[in-house]
Amino acid sequence: MKTFTRYESVDEVLNWLDRRVSALPSEPVAVSEACGRVLAETIPSPVDLPSFDRAAVDGYAVRGVETVGAGAYSPAVLQRLDAAPALPPGTTTRVAAGAPIPEGADTMVAASLGEEAGRFVNIATAVPPGENVVRRGKDLARGSPLLPQGRLLRPQDLALLAACGMDRIPVVRRPRIRLVISGDDLAIPGQERRAHQHFEAASPMLKALVARDGGEVEACLHLADDAIAEALRPENIDAMLIVGSSGEGWNDRAAEALETAGELAWHGIALEPGRSTGIGAVGNTPVFLLPGNPVACLCAYDLLAGRAIRRMGGRSTAWPYPVRRAALTKKISSELGSVDYCRVRLTPNGAEPVATGGNTRLSALAAADGFLLVPEDSEGYPAGAEVTLCLYNFLDSESNHVQ
Amino acid sequence: MKTFTRYESVDEVLNWLDRRVSALPSEPVAVSEACGRVLAETIPSPVDLPSFDRAAVDGYAVRGVETVGAGAYSPAVLQRLDAAPALPPGTTTRVAAGAPIPEGADTMVAASLGEEAGRFVNIATAVPPGENVVRRGKDLARGSPLLPQGRLLRPQDLALLAACGMDRIPVVRRPRIRLVISGDDLAIPGQERRAHQHFEAASPMLKALVARDGGEVEACLHLADDAIAEALRPENIDAMLIVGSSGEGWNDRAAEALETAGELAWHGIALEPGRSTGIGAVGNTPVFLLPGNPVACLCAYDLLAGRAIRRMGGRSTAWPYPVRRAALTKKISSELGSVDYCRVRLTPNGAEPVATGGNTRLSALAAADGFLLVPEDSEGYPAGAEVTLCLYNFLDSESNHVQ
Repeated sequence: MKTFTRYESVDEVLNWLDRRVSALPSEPVAVSEACGRVLAETIPSPVDLPSFDRAAVDGYAVRGVETVGAGAYSPAVLQRLDAAPALPPGTTTRVAAGAPIPEGADTMVAASLGEEAGRFVNIATAVPPGENVVRRGKDLARGSPLLPQGRLLRPQDLALLAACGMDRIPVVRRPRIRLVISGDDLAIPGQERRAHQHFEAASPMLKALVARDGGEVEACLHLADDAIAEALRPENIDAMLIVGSSGEGWNDRAAEALETAGELAWHGIALEPGRSTGIGAVGNTPVFLLPGNPVACLCAYDLLAGRAIRRMGGRSTAWPYPVRRAALTKKISSELGSVDYCRVRLTPNGAEPVATGGNTRLSALAAADGFLLVPEDSEGYPAGAEVTLCLYNFLDSESNHVQ
Repeated sequence: MKTFTRYESVDEVLNWLDRRVSALPSEPVAVSEACGRVLAETIPSPVDLPSFDRAAVDGYAVRGVETVGAGAYSPAVLQRLDAAPALPPGTTTRVAAGAPIPEGADTMVAASLGEEAGRFVNIATAVPPGENVVRRGKDLARGSPLLPQGRLLRPQDLALLAACGMDRIPVVRRPRIRLVISGDDLAIPGQERRAHQHFEAASPMLKALVARDGGEVEACLHLADDAIAEALRPENIDAMLIVGSSGEGWNDRAAEALETAGELAWHGIALEPGRSTGIGAVGNTPVFLLPGNPVACLCAYDLLAGRAIRRMGGRSTAWPYPVRRAALTKKISSELGSVDYCRVRLTPNGAEPVATGGNTRLSALAAADGFLLVPEDSEGYPAGAEVTLCLYNFLDSESNHVQ
């Protein structure tokens, strides 16, 4: 049976983790599937954009100089040709927005400013040469950087890549994560629960968190406490999360199994909730021992595992939570010596603490709008103190609108 | 050929849209797949959580009163039973964190505070009755609201639902969207481009935007301008986006096709870029005519179509963009009478406008960090004015950390 005698500081563990973990190699992906992926290389534009002098409006291609002096009483009268690759002087042709300007023309007259009369077009407005034409390469010159390495690709980035004719690009490979749910007393939601069992709740949460951080779950295995060792053969995965069996109980075998299979670097972290968290590796594959309690599991995942997964996926290590400053409506007391994960609710008067430290009520977590961390060396904050909150609503950051 | 004579105000069009569009019916979904879905009903807890008096720590279940007066020199000595459903007085048993407390016991003594000696356990610390035990229903009582209707489900919400034994929940059905890409001069990225063609760039962007807003693309059809009518038979879809062919060109047939098939409610919107946008319906299915230019297309999608899709999916109509206040580094001039979509870059000195109004450079869009809207009745803002920005980084809102 394990008894924790000391707890390692979160910062120390993060330093260790950052040294062990770096961005995975790249893989090609279709541009249409690339939103939210991380660009593995800076990509130079393979073309001039646009690739020809392009009409910016629907209308008539002209030599701008031929409209000089045109007005309501003295329109420029140009002969209208059918679609023509080159325009002789004194002529015009219809061109659709986005289409190439015929050779000889340098200007577009908006359709509404031309009046067709048989094979002629009357233009009653002087249009300066170059107007309504986007010159070749004006948007982007061939060879100039299109998008930088490390870019978390946005919808509009895909349009830019496609506009340059690209259909596949190199992105950082997604980290493949194995989930191991350990425990002899777990019932599966939707199935019958025996009297001594509780429902397994961490796996749907962790799957969603891994997806949020750009990873993909390779497998989710449910194993008895004494079968964890079986899962500790990390082939074709980038990290492993073992949930439960990490604490001081007589059946808690996760740490022992990891020590046998590889390296248990840390067990017992100065983090509340989440003290029983462990971290190590088998070969080069990091392994996280996460508490079975879902609230402690979220806290340990977010502080440690999520960061490693984001790093492997080429993303920022920072949290994917919107941040806001707010005043506390009540004081927060925190024990010295561990990071305290305080959940808060936003009220018109500020941030109201709803659960601190060892409180692991799931309903309080669901009622919270976000959290703040009280550092190891702080005993907390008085009512009224301005603190920095991370908001849980990363999926609908529009609620940020209320500021 | 269409000539716009007036442009309808964005607000008017949004009012029309909000009256026409509402949340879709619900469908069941697995809890493990429910992150980012919208709860269709308020769900009462089907169970007490926890469902039994639960140990909060690994250790020994005791009657708390039997440790009264215990100390280093006078430990309480309890007989240790093997796992027992009920504890007679004077006995204890090992219980793992999360497991039920045996009948008769009311208190947990942490494992590290008990010393086993054969079949007995010495407890050298008085532990108040009730300590380290979570009473049945203490987290959440059966029948109390678990999560509210309309909740955009977060990872931790899935843990709460699973902890209550739920494996399927009712969520708002995802809007099914048909994309129609229209145009005779489009090349497919990755394939050869003929001299007069440009690469089709809007569809990968729109697929990503629809996914962001909770919809799913039912099909993406590439049709010649004169074939749009074929796609205007909305069976089993909730909205249609037609890209291109919406302007004043001679081949622009989208508006005409929509008028024939159903209703063209608005064509020409006071929005820059995006003026050629049209909106209507076939039966009850809204149809959006979006500009073929990707920048104008993004603007029109975000201001109009995205809102309708979010509404159908039961989400907030507000934009899924983080918001920030910033001072302008340069003035913005805007024409009266239309909403101006100004793209800005964040600099240490504030928000620098990089493209306003009719500027449709894709590279400027990619270089922008966000945008602001200049309302119809404004001529713009002077340098130094504080404005509200929407940030494009909805995928990695951690860059919000820099405040």
